[in-house]
Amino acid sequence: MFLKRFSSTSAWTLPQTIRQILSSGQQPPSKIHVHGWVKSVRRQKNVTFAVINDGSCVSGLQAVLTHNSNPTLHALTNGASVRMTGSIVASRGSGQAKELQVDSVEVLGECNPETYPIQKQALSVEYLRDHAHLRPRTDANASMLRLRSSLLRSLHDFFERHDFCYAHTPILTSSDCEGAGETFRVTPSSTPSPSHQSPAGSPPPDPHSEFFSHPAYLTVSSQLHLEALAASLARVYTLSPCFRAEPSQTNRHLAEFWMLEAEWAWTRGVDDVCGLVEACAKHALGAGGDERALLTKGIAGHEERLRSLEAAAGSESWARMTYTEAIAELEKYHASSDAKARPFVFEPKWGQGLQSEHEKWLSEVLIKGPVFVTDYPSSVKPFYMRMNDDERTVACFDLLVPYVGELVGGSLREERLDALKKRMSTHALDPEGEEYGWYVDLRRFGSAPHGGFGMGFERLVSWVSGIENVRECIAMPRWAKRMLL
Amino acid sequence: MFLKRFSSTSAWTLPQTIRQILSSGQQPPSKIHVHGWVKSVRRQKNVTFAVINDGSCVSGLQAVLTHNSNPTLHALTNGASVRMTGSIVASRGSGQAKELQVDSVEVLGECNPETYPIQKQALSVEYLRDHAHLRPRTDANASMLRLRSSLLRSLHDFFERHDFCYAHTPILTSSDCEGAGETFRVTPSSTPSPSHQSPAGSPPPDPHSEFFSHPAYLTVSSQLHLEALAASLARVYTLSPCFRAEPSQTNRHLAEFWMLEAEWAWTRGVDDVCGLVEACAKHALGAGGDERALLTKGIAGHEERLRSLEAAAGSESWARMTYTEAIAELEKYHASSDAKARPFVFEPKWGQGLQSEHEKWLSEVLIKGPVFVTDYPSSVKPFYMRMNDDERTVACFDLLVPYVGELVGGSLREERLDALKKRMSTHALDPEGEEYGWYVDLRRFGSAPHGGFGMGFERLVSWVSGIENVRECIAMPRWAKRMLL
Repeated sequence: MFLKRFSSTSAWTLPQTIRQILSSGQQPPSKIHVHGWVKSVRRQKNVTFAVINDGSCVSGLQAVLTHNSNPTLHALTNGASVRMTGSIVASRGSGQAKELQVDSVEVLGECNPETYPIQKQALSVEYLRDHAHLRPRTDANASMLRLRSSLLRSLHDFFERHDFCYAHTPILTSSDCEGAGETFRVTPSSTPSPSHQSPAGSPPPDPHSEFFSHPAYLTVSSQLHLEALAASLARVYTLSPCFRAEPSQTNRHLAEFWMLEAEWAWTRGVDDVCGLVEACAKHALGAGGDERALLTKGIAGHEERLRSLEAAAGSESWARMTYTEAIAELEKYHASSDAKARPFVFEPKWGQGLQSEHEKWLSEVLIKGPVFVTDYPSSVKPFYMRMNDDERTVACFDLLVPYVGELVGGSLREERLDALKKRMSTHALDPEGEEYGWYVDLRRFGSAPHGGFGMGFERLVSWVSGIENVRECIAMPRWAKRMLL
Repeated sequence: MFLKRFSSTSAWTLPQTIRQILSSGQQPPSKIHVHGWVKSVRRQKNVTFAVINDGSCVSGLQAVLTHNSNPTLHALTNGASVRMTGSIVASRGSGQAKELQVDSVEVLGECNPETYPIQKQALSVEYLRDHAHLRPRTDANASMLRLRSSLLRSLHDFFERHDFCYAHTPILTSSDCEGAGETFRVTPSSTPSPSHQSPAGSPPPDPHSEFFSHPAYLTVSSQLHLEALAASLARVYTLSPCFRAEPSQTNRHLAEFWMLEAEWAWTRGVDDVCGLVEACAKHALGAGGDERALLTKGIAGHEERLRSLEAAAGSESWARMTYTEAIAELEKYHASSDAKARPFVFEPKWGQGLQSEHEKWLSEVLIKGPVFVTDYPSSVKPFYMRMNDDERTVACFDLLVPYVGELVGGSLREERLDALKKRMSTHALDPEGEEYGWYVDLRRFGSAPHGGFGMGFERLVSWVSGIENVRECIAMPRWAKRMLL
């Protein structure tokens, strides 16, 4: 009989990771196998201490090796991949509760210390960016990756608890949403490799034909699609890659980034959407404690920064102010200064968008914490935001946080058919056209008042970790002129 | 003072969804507000019954309205968006335990029954595809979307429990992995809209310049990038959009689809990876019970199909056979038939890939359940799969399931530097080149034996729901010549 039968799923199990071994309250079996990469080695006369880590936690596991039993000690170098067999015992040294008393070592993958690019000494940010495939092997990058994972789980957890449906919106889209200049265009590759040519006789594919019948772009935001889903499921969210073909080189922008977006039907107040965002962000602030401790330790002014995060997490409620109030404060501060030493490069002025310098001042200086700025002039915001009764401002908000600036943007969406059509006409958009006709339809049949928001995930990582540049907040960053791997 | 202070997060809460109201064991407050869309209306002489649903569950909530108290009853039509105020009481009718005794109704969004495209009678699959923005409003599509959400949570849950790190791998990549003919190319949009032109004086951007310095493609698989992360974090997974510019029109292929991929360091056996996949898939088979009941009800032969799923979920272990054994079975069956009525269009033959018809026969006829087929000839598999000692086959598997065919593919990855280089040279790939040099580097420094797999998420949805075509397994499908919204 050719079918091999073997153990059932209930008996199926994975070996423990180092994190599980260290955090378990139970006594592990008398002899265990532990896999990891060597993080450091300290040789003494009769004994060698090595820290190995499998990437499951910050600390790693201290392994104690006696020399006679281990003929391969010379291959225990930084970065080597090993399998150690031994027993977990209470540590006699300080710094760890448990350690591994090693009986035998197998070096599965050697690592030549002469040529290994990841050395123990501090490596520059630029050097590590150039070695994108090895960067995850640094403690800081690995911690950032685990922090991302914790944050993701915390966000999914939050939305599940509040009965939101987790949806996937399309990455390829026919609308170029925020202006074609910033989007990427998608076409089939025009040069098939020889082994993939069409059958003999048929003409080669025309690279300029439209694969999807009409032009395709990479999404810049899932919002409009999410609104179509919210018109059936009421509460939906997504965590989706988004793309901007922005040539700008700032520490807050990537060409490919991840965005959490949520839409919520039957909300009628911007304050309610802010409440949702605040609860969600506070929930996320509880994630990944060990990793954050390691990451924030490395940065300048980390104590102040940690205090700021703790204050935000513990604050009973985050400050809210209208755009009009914010402009008044900015103007007052700008005017109070010496004309030669004006604090802002751009003069704050009602009717203009807020500049980064204004946003920073509002959250870092005026409020000293997160602040929701609401009700911006309709002229600086997109067509889909709900018009307020004053007919000058829209029911929207930005959440500004210290060190990062804009973390979240959101609004009520215009759910009134006539009001939406009016806004579209002032933006020269066709309410009956192919591009937005479907969006208008959502208001034509059973329209529900609704609102939503988008949170830049790498900015959230930056905020909670203290990592200043979003290029260090994602595994393999892409920005203008830069795409490794 | 311009800062409004208000209630803290701990007091912050969202209104209950209909699912929460129906599933709660607690008596709801004497008067509640419920939002939903009208799903059906039944008018009697003195009372009207309406089912409303907010998309949170399959059943919706029955609302009972007396005529005198509700002047807007005429606007209660299918699809209308409403807010009802009343009390939850035990239902006097059969079919539901609770119902809403309505005091007042507010119609927030009317829905003209004459023009609303989503009518009560059955609508064809093609018609609904043409109305992609309204399709989520059908019960079947909404259930499918909730099922996706349940499956996603179940998968995240599974990997969290086994200490895998949830990672985001890049969508834009410089490698065109499986042959340029099937990939999409990404370039900045070449026609900036007038409002987004460059500042006066500067030349317009050259659409043919490379935004990233070198050509960018959409990812077809996250595996290689995930391997770089597994070389630091040991256990990683991702759920990522993938793209294939395939012109083929089958019910199993999309141009944009989601794939679950996992890599696991320090596994040395294909059987172990199969064990992980089996445990993961069985876990997923427990998700979304209500939705699956509704969805499978609608399909031909649903009882047999349900039995098949239940058998798979309850099976102690799924069958496994080698490719060589599978070919022997296929050949035997093919040869046993009348020469004029051969069961397969393609003759099964060692050294050739398995065709869909072969895969279906193996899982549906021979095994009558999921089956892992392992150890394919190296000649039909990619360069990164680990060579077996026979030097003819590689340590890989496909998981074939009834009705769907290939659900998962995976392998051990070649971790031996020399063996990998040798495989690459037979595939005419440069081990020192820019495209794959980094991948070879992972074996150069602290290489760890590892394996992994990829599971097509829409195929999983298809399998557990019984929805035959993957175009109905995703909110807004994209395939050749078709991309709405």
